[in-house]
Amino acid sequence: MKLLKVDTVNEARSKLMECCRHMMPQTESVSLFDAGGRVLAENIYSEENIPPYRRSIMDGYAVRSRDTGAAGDMIPSMLRVTGEVLLGRDFADLAVEPGCCVYVPTGGAVPDGADAVVMVEYCEPFGNGMVAVSKSVSPGENVVQIGEDISEGRLLLPAGRLVRPQDVGVLAAAGITAVPVFSPWKVTVISTGDELVSPDQSPGPGQIRDINTYTIAARSRAEGFEVVRTVSVRDERGALLSALDKAKSESDLVVMSGGSSQGKKDMTAELIDETADRGVLTHGIAAKPGKPTITGFDEASRTIFIGLPGHPAAALMVYEQLLICLWRKLICREQERTVRAKVNVNIPSAPGRMTFQLVRLEGSEEPEAVPVFARSGMISPMSEADGYFEMGENQEGVRPGDTVSVHLWK
Amino acid sequence: MKLLKVDTVNEARSKLMECCRHMMPQTESVSLFDAGGRVLAENIYSEENIPPYRRSIMDGYAVRSRDTGAAGDMIPSMLRVTGEVLLGRDFADLAVEPGCCVYVPTGGAVPDGADAVVMVEYCEPFGNGMVAVSKSVSPGENVVQIGEDISEGRLLLPAGRLVRPQDVGVLAAAGITAVPVFSPWKVTVISTGDELVSPDQSPGPGQIRDINTYTIAARSRAEGFEVVRTVSVRDERGALLSALDKAKSESDLVVMSGGSSQGKKDMTAELIDETADRGVLTHGIAAKPGKPTITGFDEASRTIFIGLPGHPAAALMVYEQLLICLWRKLICREQERTVRAKVNVNIPSAPGRMTFQLVRLEGSEEPEAVPVFARSGMISPMSEADGYFEMGENQEGVRPGDTVSVHLWK
Repeated sequence: MKLLKVDTVNEARSKLMECCRHMMPQTESVSLFDAGGRVLAENIYSEENIPPYRRSIMDGYAVRSRDTGAAGDMIPSMLRVTGEVLLGRDFADLAVEPGCCVYVPTGGAVPDGADAVVMVEYCEPFGNGMVAVSKSVSPGENVVQIGEDISEGRLLLPAGRLVRPQDVGVLAAAGITAVPVFSPWKVTVISTGDELVSPDQSPGPGQIRDINTYTIAARSRAEGFEVVRTVSVRDERGALLSALDKAKSESDLVVMSGGSSQGKKDMTAELIDETADRGVLTHGIAAKPGKPTITGFDEASRTIFIGLPGHPAAALMVYEQLLICLWRKLICREQERTVRAKVNVNIPSAPGRMTFQLVRLEGSEEPEAVPVFARSGMISPMSEADGYFEMGENQEGVRPGDTVSVHLWK
Repeated sequence: MKLLKVDTVNEARSKLMECCRHMMPQTESVSLFDAGGRVLAENIYSEENIPPYRRSIMDGYAVRSRDTGAAGDMIPSMLRVTGEVLLGRDFADLAVEPGCCVYVPTGGAVPDGADAVVMVEYCEPFGNGMVAVSKSVSPGENVVQIGEDISEGRLLLPAGRLVRPQDVGVLAAAGITAVPVFSPWKVTVISTGDELVSPDQSPGPGQIRDINTYTIAARSRAEGFEVVRTVSVRDERGALLSALDKAKSESDLVVMSGGSSQGKKDMTAELIDETADRGVLTHGIAAKPGKPTITGFDEASRTIFIGLPGHPAAALMVYEQLLICLWRKLICREQERTVRAKVNVNIPSAPGRMTFQLVRLEGSEEPEAVPVFARSGMISPMSEADGYFEMGENQEGVRPGDTVSVHLWK
């Protein structure tokens, strides 16, 4: 057992990242219908020009713009209608000759010869196959050029992009129906503690319901991870070791959550040291809350271990700050956008430690961050809070009028 | 066929809401593990006090605070250790007598008699079962009182709350393992248009790939809806009517997406008028983009119909503004938080119409909203944009220095 290694949050992150450098997440291919909410594993380039032909943005007549040069309300240009573009039909034989025009519906192709479209409102059928055009158009007017939307070879979407509905649309437009995405981490959550009972049980004297298994599993799923197993193990070395071994063989990430007492923390560290070939990386982080956090790594099976603090809010915050952040860095996914908010009271920090302060946001236009104080181990403040902000190790706290960047809870 | 009814966005919303007043979404019960990301259908109250016993937030000794009144570095209080609280075990026989104390681990119960806990760092074992306490504590110090976290009868989580990981934790703590949530809307997406080909096909001359089916299905799923069917129907009255009839029988919401030409819009309105007993509610909205939007309602089957504009960005924006907003109002779910951003250029609005302006956000601290201009029907700008902001019907546009509220794309 190595000595206690209290790290700053950034040191703990760096050590994990160092171990994971060669542990790039696997990738898989999903269909367009299943791509929403996944994260792209590759840059996606277009192999085509979109639109592939010149397209009208109006219902109107495709014309040679020069033919409308003098057109106006008083003196319209008279053009001969030589055809009509039908959506979805070939338009090769509809080329527009001088003095002629062709009807085109919105989204329809602009035939050869024509270089602009006059909106139908400015065109009056005149009998004898003629139309009176009362507006002049410039070259290109009301026409989307070939490749104007997406040009061949263009980067459509970068690796690391969380695929949103409109990104699905871009992929559909470009004909990309097999989408390379990252396979989710496989996660096992092990809860330990003889005092823990499952939520469907009534706690007896001295007992408490297991909370962390449920919050960590929910947060994991919200990130897209696959929770392969949640197990509850009694505080017994042999049982815990065999649970860890099994977890190591089927997970990328093993989360241990349990008691906060010193004895339990030591046991978690010993178990990780014994199970993981690289042993304990970090034993305690300089964070408030979150100090009793332990990380480890097993190189042979490429498994990350984390022993979370027992307190639910601390466990979730540490999980977010160390593991979710790590995952997002590995897959080059953007970190979540924070919300700027004003503080109207003094909020102290914990000197020498990164402080995560729960806050509620009040008001929507220019929100105020109202601190939510949680006594140790309390669960309800976490649910009252909209998120939290960070105060650095050397920051003295915030004062009324300061602006903070709030991480919203997922 | 009723006359053209161009509505403002708010009129269109009100008409839909009026129809849906008696169409409250169904509810169902899910397990705690499946509750994350769902929306609560009822207020959830606690039936218990949490913690159910007084709990220590430290490793330390449970004491009568009065016994430590004079304790300090120089003159410690000497207390007799009469027991140790074990996590998960009954503590009824560990009552603390005057002059005595009992060891308690973090999270352990504070036995009767004691009213405070002295942190273990201030207690030195002295032999003979005595401990020297070098710090005085006040009543209640380091103790979480019964019900202090959650008191019996308290509202834990309100109906309409999107269940986040920490909310799952609160439910677990309170022993609520069957969670009442709203059943998702069932959605059918019907795409029409002889010019449409599926994304895995190469469009021939005049053809175009179907985009809207994919964006609308992805957005529906992101909201939790169940996409029961996506169908592509040729532009033929009989085929469309039978598709609508089938959709009506198995969906809460039928989305039609297809061409933007005037002829197609008229056909969509006629079809809805024929299929839905309440007929067309809104035929055109005063929005840019989004004008060619048609809504309808069938009372007998309780089905909402919407004919979306053909342009992908417009279709998605209208879907968000009319249907997603409606769903969230029905289930009392909060609308998404917007992000305040500065504008540094002039952006015109469309007079008399609600204008939705696509923007990219630049900078994270005090983001700038940079307009993304999309020519009609283009798909790539939608993907470049982080979201959009609204300009009201009577607003003249925004100017450099103005602040806008940006709806982030989901």
